[in-house]
This record gives sequence, structure tokens and C-alpha cells, in this order.
Amino acid sequence: MGWNKVAIVGVGIIKFGELFDKDWEVMVEEAYLNTINNVDKGFDPKDIQAAWIADCRPGAHGTQTIAGVSLVGNIGLAGIPCTHIENGCPTGSDGFRNACLGVASGVYDVALVLGAEKMRDKSTAEMLSLAAQGHPVLQRGETAMTMFAPQAMRHMHEFGTTKEQMAMVAVKNHKNGVYDPYSHYRYEITIEDVFKSPMVCSPLNLLDCCPQTDGAAAAIICRADLAEKYTDKPVYVAGFGMGTDTFYVHEKEDFTEFVASVRAAKQAYSMAGIEPKDIDVAEVHDCFSITEIINYEDLGFCKKGEGGKFIEQGKSDLDGEVAVNPSGGLMSKGHPLGATGIAQIAELFWQLREDVRNSNGAGDPGVNEKRQVKIRKGYGLQHNVGGRGISNSVVTILTRNK
Amino acid sequence: MGWNKVAIVGVGIIKFGELFDKDWEVMVEEAYLNTINNVDKGFDPKDIQAAWIADCRPGAHGTQTIAGVSLVGNIGLAGIPCTHIENGCPTGSDGFRNACLGVASGVYDVALVLGAEKMRDKSTAEMLSLAAQGHPVLQRGETAMTMFAPQAMRHMHEFGTTKEQMAMVAVKNHKNGVYDPYSHYRYEITIEDVFKSPMVCSPLNLLDCCPQTDGAAAAIICRADLAEKYTDKPVYVAGFGMGTDTFYVHEKEDFTEFVASVRAAKQAYSMAGIEPKDIDVAEVHDCFSITEIINYEDLGFCKKGEGGKFIEQGKSDLDGEVAVNPSGGLMSKGHPLGATGIAQIAELFWQLREDVRNSNGAGDPGVNEKRQVKIRKGYGLQHNVGGRGISNSVVTILTRNK
Repeated sequence: MGWNKVAIVGVGIIKFGELFDKDWEVMVEEAYLNTINNVDKGFDPKDIQAAWIADCRPGAHGTQTIAGVSLVGNIGLAGIPCTHIENGCPTGSDGFRNACLGVASGVYDVALVLGAEKMRDKSTAEMLSLAAQGHPVLQRGETAMTMFAPQAMRHMHEFGTTKEQMAMVAVKNHKNGVYDPYSHYRYEITIEDVFKSPMVCSPLNLLDCCPQTDGAAAAIICRADLAEKYTDKPVYVAGFGMGTDTFYVHEKEDFTEFVASVRAAKQAYSMAGIEPKDIDVAEVHDCFSITEIINYEDLGFCKKGEGGKFIEQGKSDLDGEVAVNPSGGLMSKGHPLGATGIAQIAELFWQLREDVRNSNGAGDPGVNEKRQVKIRKGYGLQHNVGGRGISNSVVTILTRNK
Repeated sequence: MGWNKVAIVGVGIIKFGELFDKDWEVMVEEAYLNTINNVDKGFDPKDIQAAWIADCRPGAHGTQTIAGVSLVGNIGLAGIPCTHIENGCPTGSDGFRNACLGVASGVYDVALVLGAEKMRDKSTAEMLSLAAQGHPVLQRGETAMTMFAPQAMRHMHEFGTTKEQMAMVAVKNHKNGVYDPYSHYRYEITIEDVFKSPMVCSPLNLLDCCPQTDGAAAAIICRADLAEKYTDKPVYVAGFGMGTDTFYVHEKEDFTEFVASVRAAKQAYSMAGIEPKDIDVAEVHDCFSITEIINYEDLGFCKKGEGGKFIEQGKSDLDGEVAVNPSGGLMSKGHPLGATGIAQIAELFWQLREDVRNSNGAGDPGVNEKRQVKIRKGYGLQHNVGGRGISNSVVTILTRNK
């Protein structure tokens, strides 16, 4: 029996992509409306007592300092409390975690958490430099690629992980993304496509990397005992964890695991009272192909060093031991930092209800259901890892089991 | 009987000022050490299960995106969860609020909340522009002064509030600041000094405005029932509230009150189960002299329109009806955005324990006790208001009453 103090009763996403035609305020409003308009038994916005807005780099979309009011002011809810959360790549999932703490505290019955990010209004170089601008050490050459590529090198060296296995992650996630109308990219690729794509930072080719994507996602959560007002099929928060690691790369002892993820997962499994084998479906942080392989190990889906075999043997396919990234993952769906974690939670909400077919997904009838995972034990896992030095991770475990 | 689910067991501040000799990481570390080294019965950092870092404008000190790990990585606590909170001027107090929600949720027993801000490494013009950089409307001419000066004009017009009364706020807070070794400024001023200081934005002279200040402050909080492990004199969180208002100034109906403050105060008083007359001591947001006068009204210390008389009659003096800003307030102590709210809470912790004498304050023996307020009913109130459009407020009510 898990924590289950908080229930998710509604979720919403906007189509991810290069959204030059939508400013931040429009993205936020659309994600909010998609959420409240798709609650099973209807939803009155007046029920929302507090909100959290997750946004990592406000500097990229015209509001250097964003403040909570930028959300509630935009969606007609000025008056209620709203906190702005930033936490690197797990910004969205940490926003969700803080909203859960707020509801579990007994202070707020119903809360909104919304994540959004504009990634394309500035160049990738500017986006990267924003993360460490002015820092005496970190601004010198530290990019996402230069943090993750050495992990791939070391994993290949220690465990015999191959570039083919890494490419298989991209192939799987792009295939899943075809069935997700919210996904930024919707085309299949092959291992050869990955190999032929330009080298970004050895051993990572372009198609080993997730794109820069704009997007927004939201969820309505409430006290578990109030959920039936909104839906007969709530999804409960069984547990969550957040882990951190040393800030600077040179302080790390191991380049083949993300210690922050291991710590976050341990807390989450303990709180949920389950083991990795109980997870039916997972949305994990595949910012690079090697990241997903290391995640399999860090999250306990397989033993250390066996992540490469795990993907090769199809164990993370839609019909595998644990379906990983049915939405297409960061690799295909995209990675708008503040939105990513909440979009993963939205996907798990639909998956666990076995209701992907009815996700309010950008039209395209007959497509969504093709990524529905068969739910056996009733648990889903959400995971992000990142931040400078890959020092920051959140894991959330959701369940349909009351 | 208030909420009282969370207790404060230790607080710490660093000397506020122009700290060009200390980088952000050093400020954070000092505030942390001042906190854990001054817990009555001693404190083992291993007890901290989660942390929150409040920082409004990381762009000003070399980390454009800061992430929670920047705190725990710096103070030797890498491993535990840490969230970065930003929320305009109430950034520090909203960090405190989120930490309280975390402890009250039952997920974490003991938490650290630390606020810090570098305000002087960039020019004031840059700091201001950071708040709305790139925004199509707000970056055009909206500064703190142009938001608050019209409030003063209107308050003078509607209620006969005078420039003398506004100046009295500055005089009082500078006088209090002399007795606070943490304060940025430590000198008395006169009404004439205020009038003779340069006009910044009519009717606000330079000495009607708070300075730009670097600083850091922290607090250790825990489940109320665990407090006795750390101290025999805990201070409880009796209640808190956060209110928001419309985002743009042109949407506001009233220029003589801060609706966000009124909403925040209402929630906080209700949660604490008390009325304004029960407050012995308050640390309120005096970013400008007019702000404190309006705060008296918004927080219920006096009737609407009578804020000017309230200061004139000495009712907010150290020995008045409610002692307001014994620390010197933002006006004298300074306003490092992320630190401000937590420093206010630290002051109230000392005041309510009638222990200002022993605050770990930068030496200067025999001085601290001169600002000790006589505690009668046992309640203190903390308040911030700000953000673009002055649309964002947090109120926290603390008590020594179990």
C-alpha cells in the first residue's frame, strides 16, 4: 500500500514542437484549458486553491523573472497562491512534487500544477549559456553533450555497451512517438539513420540526442478522498523521491550511474512500498540514448551494466517487461524543461487508466490507442535527471490501485 | 489555537550590505553555518531531510539557472532533495511557505530553507531590467519606483496622507536599524534628511526607498512534535497565506491598497485563528515608505486610510501597539530579494523568544537588546508584497504559544 494521499484527476498537454506562433502565455492557457476541459465529471476552476508553475529558464521567453502570478494572472485565477519552481531538467516533476506536498499538508484541497518552456525563441547556444552564465567554471565548455558523452564512453568501456544498443533507444522512442499526436517528431528511424546522423559529441550522434522543443502540460491534483467528485478513475501518487549529487563533475566517483537518480528512486519505491518489478510503464529521462540505458539500471529495471542488453532484448518495448517511454520520450516527443516532467505524468495518467485512446490528443483518431500499454500491476514511474553535473533527479510513482 | 504543525528551531543571518567580497556560495555557506551553529541544543546536519533555496534573480550572480543542488552541493548536503523557489519580492517567504508545506505533509521531519540574493554585482538598472527582459509591455518603463509612486500619490489624494508621515516610516526604520548589527545601514535620519535627499520618482525621495543589498538568511524547521529535540523555546508557524492580483497595472481597480496583501493576510489570520490586534511585532515589506503605510491598512493594524496617522501617532514604534520592523526593515536592513522574507522570520524568531539579545548578531554586545519588543500575546507577523504589478504577497504568522 503506497502513500496515496494525493490523487490526479485531470491532465492536459499541448502539441509539442517549434511553437514560434505561440507565446508563453498562449501555451500556458492552452495547456490549462486542455486540462480543466477534460476532467471526467467536469471541473470548476474555482475549486483550485493553490497553483505551482514550473519553468526552468524564463529568460528564454521574455520574462527573466517569472513569479507565480505569471500563471494565475494569465488564466483568470489571480487571487490564489502560486509558486514558481525551477530545478533544472526535473523542473516540471519537482513542481509536481511541491504541489503534492501542498495538498498532502492539508492546507489546500485542490491544486493546479502547470509546466511550460519556450526553448526555441533563443538559439540553442544561448539556451545552454543561460544555464551557467557568468559562472567562473561551469560556463567554460560545459554543455549537455559534454556532460553525457563521457558517461556513454565509460559505460561502453566498462560494460561493453554498444553504439547499436544506444541507437536502439532512439529507434524505439521514435517508433512510439509516431503514435503520440502530442509528439514533436512523428517518424520512425533506423539504427543506420542514427549512425549516419552528424556526430555531435562522440559517441553521441545527432539522433542520440533529444531536440529543443517548446511545450506545456498541466495536472489537477486533489486530496485522495475528494477525487470521486471529479472522476471515477483517479490515479494516485503512490510515492516520490528527489535526489541530488555533487555539483561539479570533477567531484564524482562514478561515470556509469546517476547517483541522484538512484537516490530519488530509492525514496520513491520505499514510499510506494513496491519494487521495480511492479512497474508496468515508465516515462524516463532520455535526453540522450545513453541516459535511458543508464536509467534502466539506476531505476532497478535491470542490473548494473545490463542496460544495453535490456533494450536489445526488447524488454523496454511497448509489450516488454516494462514499457519505457510510450509517449516517445524526450527523444521524439521533446523536452521543454518545465513541461517535461508534467507531460510524463500526464502520459502515465492515461496509460494507467488504460485510456490513452481518449487522451485529448490533437485529433488523429485511431492513433493514440496504438501506444496503450497493457497494465498488469497498476504502477507507473516517472523520472527526470539533469542539472549541472547531472546532479538532480526526481522520481514519481503513480498507481491506479486505491 | 493556530495551525502550529511546524516549528522553527533555528535561524541565521549574515550581515547585510554590499558584499562584493563574498560570492553567492560564500554567503549561502555563512548563513547556513550561522543557523546550525546556533540551535539551542545543538544540531546535526544529517537530520535535514529536504531543503528549499529561495533566490529571485540567479542571473545577477553567475548562475542564470540555479537549481536546488546549488544549495545542497555547496554546504555538504548533496544527496537530499532541494527545490529552487522564485517568486518576486516574496521569494524568501514563499520558500519558507513551501518548506512548511513539505514538513506538514508528513514526508519530511526536518527541513532547511535558505534565501540568498546578490543585488550589487550588477547595476541597479540591469537588476531592474532582468525582471522583465524581453517582455513586450512590462520592460517599457516599469520599475519599482514607477509602480509604487502612483500608489503614494493616490493615497495622499484620497486620505490626506502626507510626505512627513511617509518620511516618518524611514526615520523609524533607520532608528531601529541602528540596533541591528545585521542591518545594511546603521545610522539615524531625520524627516528633513528625507526631504533633502534626491527625488527619485515623485513623491518618493531617495530616503523613501530601500537600498539594493546583498544578503542571506536561513531557518531550520521541523514537525512541531519533534521541536523539543532541538530547543525548549521553539517558535511555531501559526498560519500563512499567499495572495496574488492581476498581472498588469492597468487591470487594477484600486491604487491605495495591495489586494494581494489583503488576500494573503486574510488566509494567514484565518489559519492562525487570531486577529490583527493579537500581533505584538511585525516585519513588513517597506520597500518604499508608502508601502509600509499601506501595509498597516492591508494587514488590519488600522483602518483604511489611517496608515499615515498610525505612524505619526507612534503606534508602530518599538513600544507601540504593534512594533513594526524592529530589525530596521527593508529600508535600513536591506532587501536581498530571496533572503528578505527569511531574515524577517529570523527576526521574529528572536523577538518572540524575547531573545534578541542573544541573536548571533555580528558581535556588537549590548546593542541587540535595544530593539527587543515586549511580547504580550505571543504573535509575530511577517509580510512581503511585490512582483510585477505588485501582484504577489505572502504573510506568515508565528507564535511562541504552543
